[in-house]
Amino acid sequence: MQNTITVGLLGLGTVGSGVIEILRDHQEQIQHKTGCAVTIKSALVSDLSKPRELSGSTTTLTERYEDITRDPDIDVIVEVMGGIDHTLTILLEAIEHGKHVVTANKDLIAEHGAELFEACQKHQCDLYYEASVAGGIPIIRSIMDGLASDRITKMMGIVNGTTNYIMTKMAQDGVDFDSVLKEAQELGFAESDPTADVDGLDAARKMTILSILGFSMPFELKDVEVKGIRNISLDDIRYAEELGYRIKLIGIAENDHAGVSVSVEPSLLPVSHPLSSVNDEFNAVYVYGDAVGETMFYGPGAGKLPTATAVVSDLIAVLKNIRLGTTGTAYVQPQFPHQLKAKSEKLTKKYMRMQVLDEPGVLNEITHAFAEYGVSFDQVIQRSTDDENTRELMLMTHLVSEDDFEKAKHDLEQLAPVKHIHSIFRVEGGQ
Amino acid sequence: MQNTITVGLLGLGTVGSGVIEILRDHQEQIQHKTGCAVTIKSALVSDLSKPRELSGSTTTLTERYEDITRDPDIDVIVEVMGGIDHTLTILLEAIEHGKHVVTANKDLIAEHGAELFEACQKHQCDLYYEASVAGGIPIIRSIMDGLASDRITKMMGIVNGTTNYIMTKMAQDGVDFDSVLKEAQELGFAESDPTADVDGLDAARKMTILSILGFSMPFELKDVEVKGIRNISLDDIRYAEELGYRIKLIGIAENDHAGVSVSVEPSLLPVSHPLSSVNDEFNAVYVYGDAVGETMFYGPGAGKLPTATAVVSDLIAVLKNIRLGTTGTAYVQPQFPHQLKAKSEKLTKKYMRMQVLDEPGVLNEITHAFAEYGVSFDQVIQRSTDDENTRELMLMTHLVSEDDFEKAKHDLEQLAPVKHIHSIFRVEGGQ
Repeated sequence: MQNTITVGLLGLGTVGSGVIEILRDHQEQIQHKTGCAVTIKSALVSDLSKPRELSGSTTTLTERYEDITRDPDIDVIVEVMGGIDHTLTILLEAIEHGKHVVTANKDLIAEHGAELFEACQKHQCDLYYEASVAGGIPIIRSIMDGLASDRITKMMGIVNGTTNYIMTKMAQDGVDFDSVLKEAQELGFAESDPTADVDGLDAARKMTILSILGFSMPFELKDVEVKGIRNISLDDIRYAEELGYRIKLIGIAENDHAGVSVSVEPSLLPVSHPLSSVNDEFNAVYVYGDAVGETMFYGPGAGKLPTATAVVSDLIAVLKNIRLGTTGTAYVQPQFPHQLKAKSEKLTKKYMRMQVLDEPGVLNEITHAFAEYGVSFDQVIQRSTDDENTRELMLMTHLVSEDDFEKAKHDLEQLAPVKHIHSIFRVEGGQ
Repeated sequence: MQNTITVGLLGLGTVGSGVIEILRDHQEQIQHKTGCAVTIKSALVSDLSKPRELSGSTTTLTERYEDITRDPDIDVIVEVMGGIDHTLTILLEAIEHGKHVVTANKDLIAEHGAELFEACQKHQCDLYYEASVAGGIPIIRSIMDGLASDRITKMMGIVNGTTNYIMTKMAQDGVDFDSVLKEAQELGFAESDPTADVDGLDAARKMTILSILGFSMPFELKDVEVKGIRNISLDDIRYAEELGYRIKLIGIAENDHAGVSVSVEPSLLPVSHPLSSVNDEFNAVYVYGDAVGETMFYGPGAGKLPTATAVVSDLIAVLKNIRLGTTGTAYVQPQFPHQLKAKSEKLTKKYMRMQVLDEPGVLNEITHAFAEYGVSFDQVIQRSTDDENTRELMLMTHLVSEDDFEKAKHDLEQLAPVKHIHSIFRVEGGQ
């Protein structure tokens, strides 16, 4: 049996140096668990001249990825450099050279996972990606192994730390979106270009990965309906609170007889729901199984060491497979064909806040527009505004199909007394 | 490769019939994931004459365990009969005959785990026991694989559903222990003999299993300090609430330079702590890792299908190992020697409620007794009682060693004005 496993590292940023740190600090423990030692032979960096802290390390740095992908000594590639197309090329070349791959790259797995798995199957290589979803939370493993015997029907996740941090601060401190975003950027919790986070793309990628795994079905990023958090106002947060709800950016994936629907959108959750208490930059994934009922997995969704923990735990799995001669056996083709749910089959409750003229009969006109499509209301709040000619109206519907809701909304927009629809969010749980 | 795996079932009670149900309902999915079919050839029952619902099943029932342990067709034994000594004998015999074992039996694993593992190693057999701790929550797998690269320093768990149900009802409905217990027994949430649950033994067994795994250290049930919930009164719950805490029966396992300490005891947790919101019969395990920080795993701790889910997920792991020829490789000997923490090194905060005479200088006398041992207070509440000669006194200490606290308590008991110490609980978290 092989007693030393040699690793090539692609990327030496935050997570990369976390991987080096954990391999160094937990060396004995890893050797005890796997029966073999791990050496990082070389690391790909974009700029060799940049000063780095690698004291006592024997790792060679290179700017040429071929030095790693073609090095016959290297058994496993750990990819923590990010990026999509160029990174795909590198990894496919590495797999062709028989390297196993551990990656933290959600963008890559969400968009090219199938291609990578195919290559791995062909070359009997392992591909592990626990760190790509919810950082330090072992959610991929829990779905694949821990709940392997169950049929998963629903997953709900707070899978983006930046937006959860922003939503938490808005709710707790009463500060508006723009100010919190600015503060988060200064603190390093949000990128200087926050688009992928605040517009929901990052969360959508993670929900794509979870959906493929959890529902054993091929699934693409474009299948996810995505809405971001830019238009959530403090008014919405206050209305939600008043009704016993909190607003979170939630990824929801559902699978029933009518097919799968996956969305990422700001949603109202009852305060008693476990996901409502997930605050700051923490992540959590709620999983409903036919047999197990509800389970939740909570932890840090990002950060140097949490993410590196997931990467090194994957590396340990690969080490064990190498020692046992079972690499390339973990992947299972999706069992079911791709089937998206039609809009007419997607039933949700909606929260809606709008500005209407203060005239007799307005509420009746509005509820009539909804009643045409069979939409009825769970809660209604009407308030005065600074403008004495208008009123603010908050409506929460009972279950309604996406189809019917869109038609009702379209008719509503034609009504003269409806001045402006401020916001529409999904409502999850509750009565 | 083997295309059908044959299982022998020990026990056909609630969990046993759940296993049959899941294997039947999720047959295709399991075959898709593992590439092989599963048949339950025979099941051990205690009374053949009892009428049973096994429609369409080809499973043979027997009262003789040798029919199963010695059957050369059987590959895997699924043990869901419970019991300790007799069950150990049966399983050891099965292992000697080369059978792999999946068990849901926490009592057996907590008390004879080491012996069973040794036998399994000798005969190259698998032993899986996910269902033994926290039912449907894949906590064992998460600790072994998901956090494999991390060093776990603390685990806190609500791992007994019965006591958590009782504590939740007491707090929410203001009903006392005896009444809630009676109701829980009528509803089937508590056994007719509730001793193992309410006195903490069941939780202690689960914490023993988690400690061995999480700290990679040999550990015995007798090493756990156990206190049950019988003496928690509604008064304590109300005081705790007033101070911003909830009382839960918590298993706490800690590992630092001074060694390991494990206890199961009623503890005050800040309401903001994620474990505080775990209600009814739900379980949750909080895990702190050096690198990952805090993670939590939440779900149903018991019940027919949740427990059976864990059993069948283990069975799937064994099937994969059989197909890959890697059985008997999952177990790792503990890495560290057994080292318990001395009482003088165990620092906790304490909550204490007592009845004292209403005399001048009493509070001073009491705080003096504590000050002798360097114990100071975070919070103090003194109240009048129905008896005009006495007062009720609630003290919450800062961190104190078990040693010092016991000495102070001893001195306190000698003080004339101290009429009765009602309750002493651990306080976790907070300032």
